[in-house]
Amino acid sequence: MPDRLQADVVVVGAGIAGLVAARNLADAGKEVVVLEARDRVGGRVRNHEFVDGVVVELGGQWIGPGQLHMNKLASDLGLETFPTFDTGEHLLRFGEELLRSQGSMPRLGSLVLADLGQAWTALDRLAEHVPLDAPWEADGAEELDGQTLETWIVHNAMTGTARDLLRRFARSVFAAEPTELSLLHALFATHAGGGVDSITSITGGAQQDRFVGGSQVVPDALAERLGVRVRLHAPVRRIEEHGASVTVLADGFLASARRVVVAVPPALAARITYEPPLPGARDQLTQRLPAGSVIKCHALYETPFWREEGLSGRAASDAGPVGLTFDNSPPDGSRGVLVAFLEGADARRLGGARAEVRRHAVLGALAEYFGARAASPIDYVDLDWSDERWTRGCYGAHFPPGVWTQFGPALRQPVGRIHWAGTETATAWNGYMDGAAQSGERVAAEILAAPA
Amino acid sequence: MPDRLQADVVVVGAGIAGLVAARNLADAGKEVVVLEARDRVGGRVRNHEFVDGVVVELGGQWIGPGQLHMNKLASDLGLETFPTFDTGEHLLRFGEELLRSQGSMPRLGSLVLADLGQAWTALDRLAEHVPLDAPWEADGAEELDGQTLETWIVHNAMTGTARDLLRRFARSVFAAEPTELSLLHALFATHAGGGVDSITSITGGAQQDRFVGGSQVVPDALAERLGVRVRLHAPVRRIEEHGASVTVLADGFLASARRVVVAVPPALAARITYEPPLPGARDQLTQRLPAGSVIKCHALYETPFWREEGLSGRAASDAGPVGLTFDNSPPDGSRGVLVAFLEGADARRLGGARAEVRRHAVLGALAEYFGARAASPIDYVDLDWSDERWTRGCYGAHFPPGVWTQFGPALRQPVGRIHWAGTETATAWNGYMDGAAQSGERVAAEILAAPA
Repeated sequence: MPDRLQADVVVVGAGIAGLVAARNLADAGKEVVVLEARDRVGGRVRNHEFVDGVVVELGGQWIGPGQLHMNKLASDLGLETFPTFDTGEHLLRFGEELLRSQGSMPRLGSLVLADLGQAWTALDRLAEHVPLDAPWEADGAEELDGQTLETWIVHNAMTGTARDLLRRFARSVFAAEPTELSLLHALFATHAGGGVDSITSITGGAQQDRFVGGSQVVPDALAERLGVRVRLHAPVRRIEEHGASVTVLADGFLASARRVVVAVPPALAARITYEPPLPGARDQLTQRLPAGSVIKCHALYETPFWREEGLSGRAASDAGPVGLTFDNSPPDGSRGVLVAFLEGADARRLGGARAEVRRHAVLGALAEYFGARAASPIDYVDLDWSDERWTRGCYGAHFPPGVWTQFGPALRQPVGRIHWAGTETATAWNGYMDGAAQSGERVAAEILAAPA
Repeated sequence: MPDRLQADVVVVGAGIAGLVAARNLADAGKEVVVLEARDRVGGRVRNHEFVDGVVVELGGQWIGPGQLHMNKLASDLGLETFPTFDTGEHLLRFGEELLRSQGSMPRLGSLVLADLGQAWTALDRLAEHVPLDAPWEADGAEELDGQTLETWIVHNAMTGTARDLLRRFARSVFAAEPTELSLLHALFATHAGGGVDSITSITGGAQQDRFVGGSQVVPDALAERLGVRVRLHAPVRRIEEHGASVTVLADGFLASARRVVVAVPPALAARITYEPPLPGARDQLTQRLPAGSVIKCHALYETPFWREEGLSGRAASDAGPVGLTFDNSPPDGSRGVLVAFLEGADARRLGGARAEVRRHAVLGALAEYFGARAASPIDYVDLDWSDERWTRGCYGAHFPPGVWTQFGPALRQPVGRIHWAGTETATAWNGYMDGAAQSGERVAAEILAAPA
């Protein structure tokens, strides 16, 4: 027999969204239970400790200056951050060429730079006009949502290099190919992240700061405050609404409450059985919000040796397997860590590969960027988020063409006593930890304002 | 305690795909159990009997001359068909205008006709070059899969009227907007259906024939032969593979077998719990194959009165709510039946509406086509397939941009002892009953050829 639990609100999922919702509800005097499928909290945020105690993050890790919810959360929880290493030249590999850049722009030809500049500007301008709370109400929403980002790139960048850099941007934000993305969604997410510069920059942007101890300190600190309210090993299978109460059936638990918050990614929310069944629009929306594909890889070295060569550790490429890297060394630089991202098609190509094949491919690519020493780390770890049964893809879900305009209003609309959270429901930094925190705050306020 | 069942193969889902697979396996001497969630067989095929005994179909209903698997099935099962009523003029409504046409083409201006003609020809030519067993290997697959059908329409049809008719084609085939569809998918499905003419025609095409007694006679006849092998009220929740055996847990049943066939739509296949978890690529594919949106409506009249006025009962419109109608009267014409389709955006607009609002809107549209008598039927019935918990959308699933090229090979690839069927896996008449039957035959052959 399952343990019976009673609460005002049951929260499904102990990622940042669910934990923030639970904290706010508990602070407002509500009895809360959080049911988490895994043996840990954090969802898409997860630390890994290397053999010698160096902590890295297998999932979300950075916060930036525009991320109001995460910055407030860090401050509320008394968590320390430190700046991402951002000194030296970035690398950009095009075919055989390895270019260095001092600012954000590599030393490309003036034609390419002009082309890229006008395309970024055009993208930012279009993005600014997408309403963050209702992208389907943008001027020309049907037309913007009726095409892929790839179509826009081909029509708005003339040079192959500029196109490839725009595609790289898409992969780095969505872990998906620009062919998969609605242009309207790409614009929405760009606006929600404060524009292209804000999204792509280290200093001054989304990759500016890191958490001392790794980003998992955030969900851990929230969970610690919530204490026994958080139940692990409790995947939710079924949510039943009966009049003024909701019953949530998880492995080992049967929880009753007045309201429930579903704070898991849309594709996983679709896998819960709802009784009565959800309305068609809500169900069909969750059939249409797939998660991106990313394998995040870390290599540990004695020292951050690339720094000696004037390199920042940031590299990007027009070809796989490793499209993007950063210096992810500990704050004191006592060890060197490179983090490498395999995103979209690159992640899919190596997704089914044996561990040693993947490792070999990733270290080979790091060596091409940073020299032979990069091929021989002390330790290596990677995680394919598509294989994680309680996530099934990262960074977040994206909207394919036509979905915002056909189904957008169903995204946050509660169904009876069921409320929806998660970074995919956020109006700022959608897909980021900050969006998750925002969604937790929004859903808690929604419930506190609702009739009992 | 659930009833324990033992078989060589468990089939999940008693639609045409699952039933054909089960029949072929049983005929080959295999012990088979079919687990069906509903209280009936047929899946997306379902009869409805009007008050006076007239049978209509709420789901799939037609078969056509190129549909080899359904024609053979009908003949094997000794089922009778009759021709769809196809005499008289079709109607085409554009804004305020109601045009009549004697052939397949309405009396449009010569510019529009030339525009439409070249666009259809171009679409057919492109479609012919998409390999039906591997659309991702088409010449230029990346480019075709990188854009929406809407993008292609805007670039390849010059007149608004031709564009609208192409959009209507998309809705009628996919029950989705052309904005939602990969061009490559639209081409694949067009090729799989024998081309635009074959798909859109009554006589000589996909709407040519109907089953005496309604299309549900097909699954009913298959189920009758399978007898107690088919278990109703048995939604499958979990599939576990242990070495050389598979355990399938359904409400009320625990079935063990050597192999399992999952013959439910991809979005529902994703909602079963698999142990061990499915590979990332397969899981992510099923996050990306949403079902279309359609409400199928029938109005019953004393007589097929439109026939007296020289009308075929077929009407199409550039505007909602009713985009397409057909004469669906019984074989002897003793009563009149009009079937009206609300597809894509039209279905979504009226999806959440109260029953009487929907009925009023549909009958109002029928009256605009066929005169005031159409507004007052003897009886009326409709079904929104998005609300059906064991289907969640019709006609079939579609591939949004980027999905064929990124995930196509995972569509039919068995995972261990789990095999995939359903019309979405078909290489001919994908999305039709014929594709379902083909997939059932294919998967049965796959299992019979597999090592024990």
